Amino acid sequence: MSAQRLLSKKVGHVTKVDQDMTGPSENSVGVVKTKYFHFALAHDELSLESRERLGPITVAYETYGELNEQRSNAILILHALSGDAHAAGFHKGDEKPGWWDDMIGPGKAFDTNKYFIICSNVLGGCKGTTGPSSINPKTAKPYGLDFPIISISDMVNVQEHLIDHLKIDQLLSVAGGSMGGMQSLEWLTVHSHRLKSAIVIATAAKHSPQQIAFDEVGRQAIMADPHWKDGHYYSGPLPDKGLAVARMVGHITYMSEISMAEKFGRRFSGNGKPHQLSLGFEVEDYLHNRGNNFVKRFDANSYLYITRAIDSFDASRGKELYEVFKGIKTKVLVLAFKSDWLYPASQSKEIVRACKLAGVDTTYCEIDSTYGHDAFLLEVEEETHLVKYFLQKASIENGATGEYGVTEYAI
Amino acid sequence: MSAQRLLSKKVGHVTKVDQDMTGPSENSVGVVKTKYFHFALAHDELSLESRERLGPITVAYETYGELNEQRSNAILILHALSGDAHAAGFHKGDEKPGWWDDMIGPGKAFDTNKYFIICSNVLGGCKGTTGPSSINPKTAKPYGLDFPIISISDMVNVQEHLIDHLKIDQLLSVAGGSMGGMQSLEWLTVHSHRLKSAIVIATAAKHSPQQIAFDEVGRQAIMADPHWKDGHYYSGPLPDKGLAVARMVGHITYMSEISMAEKFGRRFSGNGKPHQLSLGFEVEDYLHNRGNNFVKRFDANSYLYITRAIDSFDASRGKELYEVFKGIKTKVLVLAFKSDWLYPASQSKEIVRACKLAGVDTTYCEIDSTYGHDAFLLEVEEETHLVKYFLQKASIENGATGEYGVTEYAI
Repeated sequence: MSAQRLLSKKVGHVTKVDQDMTGPSENSVGVVKTKYFHFALAHDELSLESRERLGPITVAYETYGELNEQRSNAILILHALSGDAHAAGFHKGDEKPGWWDDMIGPGKAFDTNKYFIICSNVLGGCKGTTGPSSINPKTAKPYGLDFPIISISDMVNVQEHLIDHLKIDQLLSVAGGSMGGMQSLEWLTVHSHRLKSAIVIATAAKHSPQQIAFDEVGRQAIMADPHWKDGHYYSGPLPDKGLAVARMVGHITYMSEISMAEKFGRRFSGNGKPHQLSLGFEVEDYLHNRGNNFVKRFDANSYLYITRAIDSFDASRGKELYEVFKGIKTKVLVLAFKSDWLYPASQSKEIVRACKLAGVDTTYCEIDSTYGHDAFLLEVEEETHLVKYFLQKASIENGATGEYGVTEYAI
Repeated sequence: MSAQRLLSKKVGHVTKVDQDMTGPSENSVGVVKTKYFHFALAHDELSLESRERLGPITVAYETYGELNEQRSNAILILHALSGDAHAAGFHKGDEKPGWWDDMIGPGKAFDTNKYFIICSNVLGGCKGTTGPSSINPKTAKPYGLDFPIISISDMVNVQEHLIDHLKIDQLLSVAGGSMGGMQSLEWLTVHSHRLKSAIVIATAAKHSPQQIAFDEVGRQAIMADPHWKDGHYYSGPLPDKGLAVARMVGHITYMSEISMAEKFGRRFSGNGKPHQLSLGFEVEDYLHNRGNNFVKRFDANSYLYITRAIDSFDASRGKELYEVFKGIKTKVLVLAFKSDWLYPASQSKEIVRACKLAGVDTTYCEIDSTYGHDAFLLEVEEETHLVKYFLQKASIENGATGEYGVTEYAI
């Protein structure tokens, strides 16, 4: 994870990262295993927002901590575009922990001594949950582009089936950043009766044309790769070059100008030059590495389907945004980061304003950070402080709202 | 040109654009022809910054207006990444004028009733000046990657040969935006004895890692195209898909978030969808069109060579920036645009600060615009006002400097 690499540059986190790198430590959930939940509805199919049907469906998920007797301490973690169910702890033999290990574990923000943490891979993904690389039971071949169009709403519906399966009536919270924040908003606006609280980090109620444009360039890069073959590439070479370019575009948007300047400047990497046109700047090396590593772990069709779901998401559903928040008793925490230019704080403030207008008990904090969008994975200390306190309030209040009113920090 | 398309949206310019679209009008330089200057130095070759040699060299250029008897009214216009020698007027039969026609013509900012305007295609380009698609006399085939690495300094050296050829000792001014601004800085810092003034628009003394990163994604997209074939594609299909993706990335950076939101919002284009994964947002259509039009007029290898020259440019040459401005008697006008996030005003201010520190007579203006980097092609009214006045001063003063000191507007 980029979080780990970047963290190791950050003084004060170095010791902890070193521990993480060498295996489970005292504040780790230890060795974990991904579980699989298969579900089959009437006629084996789930009804999607597109009105198409899909099934049967497998959901890859992990859990950390223990569900209490009242089944009231469960928190669902929602991952971003390239994340997966493995949010914390170590898979056997792995040197690197799950993608949000800094936030999940004994004594951490999502404290596994207190809470039962669940994280599942999204519908359309490629890490165990049904997606375009899964076998289509009708053809016995991978779906490819026969996979139906999916939405953030479909992802959340699948998560709701998982929560039913785990016999949890109400979640103490849902929490996610970036695309995870969109899922958080979807839970909040459509399934708020099943939540006591929701944490919405570094995201938007809907994508701006600039955000859509960056995703579209990524999609075009993948579809321009001749190995993509209209999505039916699973039996041959993969569209790795296109996917790598898509990921490089993404990484530019995840970092701030300042963090790039601090990390790379105009230094040369001194790495071998493949041909005379390479300049050999460190920042170029970084992008190449990110791109090339990504294709080893991610499916190009999943990238297309998931970015499409992100771009079409609109929490307001064509109404004024505050209208979809009306009557919601769930407590909300919204976090944004000052140097995040992919999901600028203005978009978080739009959500907060709409929540306030609808009378929702909302806390907002804009965290001072130079890490850009990556900050939601990196600003662990600040997030821990805010999330811990917020979850504590949500636990104690046992469903009562309005008591604290709207709290704001550092807007 | 994107300038034309965007301008037609701008109230107040509509009439003029409509005139432009239907052929020369009163304030047009009329029908023009590109000229070609071939030069052969000792051993037919030009010595490049890379220490390689190149030659013979052809320079495509256009001129507008008349050179006066004293040969003292010449202004050299410097184009950006995808520009060419055709800056103003109409090529016979064309409906669209040159790329900076709004600024060059009788009574315009670069007033052809007063000044003799020259614009040439840069070295490495693909519009008539020697570049990677030109025939290599040693092999009788296009150079491809046998074309030597070029720099902004090499481009300017070639322009100096053209100025010599036109028997002009001293230019009244040089002017350009974006990469054109870098050439302006190069003229200013290396050849200031041949300039009375220099206009530096929406540019940087050197690229930040973020700027390099955007260019590198474009280069990677081109090189990932299997038709690119290490640059030797001229006898077969062209790497159009890769080049189109590169251009799409560029266009995102040329517009501001606000101008994208105003122009496209989240509206759907209603155009036919090539397959189910298309969302059909207007902004996607715009990018596809820009990408597809670009490949008809631009060479992928030129894109690689020219962006490489831009990324490696560093006006400071490893010193403190102010040191390269020391002793310069040339008057300088620096312009930046508020919503330009590709070349933010902070980079222009860095140039201005260095000029001031070195005692150079410098005027700076940050123009309030929502057009992003495209503003240097679109904010005609404001630029005209500033450029006209600046050139008038430079003409009158006949080389005297320091009289007006540093003037600043709206910093």
